[in-house]
Amino acid sequence: MHKIKQSEIEFFKSALAKDSDVYPTSAILQWLKQKNEETKTRIEQIPLDKMRMWHFDEVTGNLVHDSGRFFSIEGIRIETNWGKVASWEQPIINQPEIGFLGIICKKINNVLHFLMQAKIEPGNLNMVQLSPTLQATKSNYTRVHKGKVPAFLEYFNGEKPAKILLDQLQSEQGARFLRKRNRNIIIKIPEDENINIPENFIWVTLGQIKELMRYDNVVNMDSRTVISGISFGSYNEQTLEYFLALGNLSICNEHCLYSTLSFDNYLNDFDQIISWITNLKSRYDMKVTPVPLKLVKEWVYDGMSIRHNNNQFFSVIGVNVDIENREVISWDQPMIKPAQEGIVAFIVKPINGLYHFLVQAKLEAGNFDIIELAPTVQCLTGNYRTGFQEYSVPFINEVLTASDNKIWYSAYQSEEGGRFYKEQNKNMIIEAGENFPLEVPENYCWMTLNQLFVLIRFNNYLNIAARSLISAVSF
Amino acid sequence: MHKIKQSEIEFFKSALAKDSDVYPTSAILQWLKQKNEETKTRIEQIPLDKMRMWHFDEVTGNLVHDSGRFFSIEGIRIETNWGKVASWEQPIINQPEIGFLGIICKKINNVLHFLMQAKIEPGNLNMVQLSPTLQATKSNYTRVHKGKVPAFLEYFNGEKPAKILLDQLQSEQGARFLRKRNRNIIIKIPEDENINIPENFIWVTLGQIKELMRYDNVVNMDSRTVISGISFGSYNEQTLEYFLALGNLSICNEHCLYSTLSFDNYLNDFDQIISWITNLKSRYDMKVTPVPLKLVKEWVYDGMSIRHNNNQFFSVIGVNVDIENREVISWDQPMIKPAQEGIVAFIVKPINGLYHFLVQAKLEAGNFDIIELAPTVQCLTGNYRTGFQEYSVPFINEVLTASDNKIWYSAYQSEEGGRFYKEQNKNMIIEAGENFPLEVPENYCWMTLNQLFVLIRFNNYLNIAARSLISAVSF
Repeated sequence: MHKIKQSEIEFFKSALAKDSDVYPTSAILQWLKQKNEETKTRIEQIPLDKMRMWHFDEVTGNLVHDSGRFFSIEGIRIETNWGKVASWEQPIINQPEIGFLGIICKKINNVLHFLMQAKIEPGNLNMVQLSPTLQATKSNYTRVHKGKVPAFLEYFNGEKPAKILLDQLQSEQGARFLRKRNRNIIIKIPEDENINIPENFIWVTLGQIKELMRYDNVVNMDSRTVISGISFGSYNEQTLEYFLALGNLSICNEHCLYSTLSFDNYLNDFDQIISWITNLKSRYDMKVTPVPLKLVKEWVYDGMSIRHNNNQFFSVIGVNVDIENREVISWDQPMIKPAQEGIVAFIVKPINGLYHFLVQAKLEAGNFDIIELAPTVQCLTGNYRTGFQEYSVPFINEVLTASDNKIWYSAYQSEEGGRFYKEQNKNMIIEAGENFPLEVPENYCWMTLNQLFVLIRFNNYLNIAARSLISAVSF
Repeated sequence: MHKIKQSEIEFFKSALAKDSDVYPTSAILQWLKQKNEETKTRIEQIPLDKMRMWHFDEVTGNLVHDSGRFFSIEGIRIETNWGKVASWEQPIINQPEIGFLGIICKKINNVLHFLMQAKIEPGNLNMVQLSPTLQATKSNYTRVHKGKVPAFLEYFNGEKPAKILLDQLQSEQGARFLRKRNRNIIIKIPEDENINIPENFIWVTLGQIKELMRYDNVVNMDSRTVISGISFGSYNEQTLEYFLALGNLSICNEHCLYSTLSFDNYLNDFDQIISWITNLKSRYDMKVTPVPLKLVKEWVYDGMSIRHNNNQFFSVIGVNVDIENREVISWDQPMIKPAQEGIVAFIVKPINGLYHFLVQAKLEAGNFDIIELAPTVQCLTGNYRTGFQEYSVPFINEVLTASDNKIWYSAYQSEEGGRFYKEQNKNMIIEAGENFPLEVPENYCWMTLNQLFVLIRFNNYLNIAARSLISAVSF
């Protein structure tokens, strides 16, 4: 676990390669813009009960596909001793299968390149975003339904040889999905393997992906979660010097690199972090029971969409989608539309000479195991700008009032466009001011970046918002 | 995570201390024997519907306590694409709360001692077994019900100061409990803190606990699971030499020590292990649905107990318990009685000069997350001796035919005596013969002991049978 591995060095070189011999970053942006212009899309909101191939189940009122496949919108009731709201009911997406989010890598000119896809999703802002090589549901990849086989599946299912570099189960949005997880996988094919690249695919370096993440809504959520799992090895003087020699790093990035690589100088050791999580999971319960969608309290179907009484949180809408490229594809589906845009932010602070991230333990209705680790601030649904939220969000002021020189990272990023309708959240990493306290409330904990990378490896520790932010860390 | 810590050195010294200045091991055995003799118990099987304070729920037929507290026996239906049986129904224990299994440590004469308890449980073989300082349900430790406060609770709930050395969520038997977990915790109190030790408590070293585990049914399951989480730090030449200098180790134990401490020379690195788990969890599903106990297929209530049609697996029996020590305590409760004794065994093999353990991924009905990692052989319920099992158990022959010099460890150990009636399983660690294959079926993986210790730290990776065996590893 702790030796520096060849794959970690290769990932790190790729992360430093902010431009590529294959395509400069500007050309990738241009290529995405062109793909966008070539595509004609019409997305129209329609009443949920007018969607082709979807219906409300007679008994439960759950929103289901006529085939029984894909996903459904169901109701749940939550009871918990966590937080200030002891119980509530809400609609949630139920898609009880593990999908593939896979990226193929290959060394080109001695630098690892990632095969990315310009992919259209009906909910995407920017319509076309940069996606993993493969996004496949279980029905796709087990080919139960004999549908069209996704491109490059043969490298992920063992039919063609490839070396697995990363292969992790990662969670989706716990407030919207019921215990949904995906298999996040990166594989490497031999340098001399010439594969046929379809016109909507492109080779990019990890540094370029991170560079593109500085733009709003260019790199999709699936890409971000997959690359968030890439760790860069553990620190010793020798490997650190090696890494420093590789790149021309600014001071800020050098700090970040130290935090990435170092297992020393942490404020809390791993036993303390695990104990912190154990304590919270032991003391707090969450009971989730299914409720027929038509009986979910405080939520109504108004003839068009399912929304909260007070128009808070999100609504379930129906869309009619026409995408015209060379062929016309048309379908209807339900989507989740947020009530307003949100914000997710990590606050970082140098402690013992090493940047630490302030991690929040957060309970969400769809969590697999009560709590997951979230960014310092995560308000996806709260009315954070106006101050009229039901209860205050800790640390939100530090984030909203940070001066420019303390903002490490700030960009709007989309939730997954196959389920979420034009949902963007502001992603930020903020360096805390000097007076920011070391003492934090019981559901917060300071961790180094490398400690976070260790936790990412294991199931259901870091939530998708935290991973989205971590994927943006560059050197 | 990877620096050797003071607590790890102290644990290791305690593990090497096979005798203590406080009580020699023989005196502890004598003390337990005496406690046993002082106690009069009468455990009588009675019909389930004659139990005081318990009843079958009118609607579901579930077996519940009149107060609604403690635990219940319910039915579940399992559907899965794992293994050869696609679906089945069974009774299961539902106890949806996280209990405390806690041990207090203190340095005495410069060696860490563990405060253990001689505890009576109705299902225990040997009646009195060595237990953790504290076994408490959530109702106990949150004191919701104002019952008798368990001894030493104040050190675990923060009322009195103590340093947490280990604090992990660990699973119970997946074939018998529905997603049950306990908080396994070890705390250390200052050397100069004089605490009052009741007569049924005793200070012992970790080496003594491991020595006592060489006897049948002396150290209870709760103790074994707690101490299984103790890791001994990571390897480097310096720390290893330090450890070797501490003890007078035999060659076999030295090998085992290397496997404990070394993070190098593994056959599979951590990314490969995680990928192996991810692949299995992605490909295999398990759907668990509640079924009213009275409708569970192939199980019947015969007027006395609930048993399988063919008397296989286990039965749910009712017991009337009288325990007479200084006072008489009497109660009734349901218990799980196994159809026969089972066997759990790890096969180990030197690979790259380091002992590796052959780990099995195993699906059980009550698992929190589809599979957990089990010993090479785990047949708790199969008719493994006669060869008449429904399907063959891989590697069982290697275990049953191992020559004496290849048996590292062999003892009968009990399941937890509060729920399981006289259930003992043979616990074995066997060194494989030279011809034992390196290639293993897809649901098996070779790991070093230190890799297993890393996995134990995180929720729901190693099952309780694997942990029971690992706790027995001594130096």
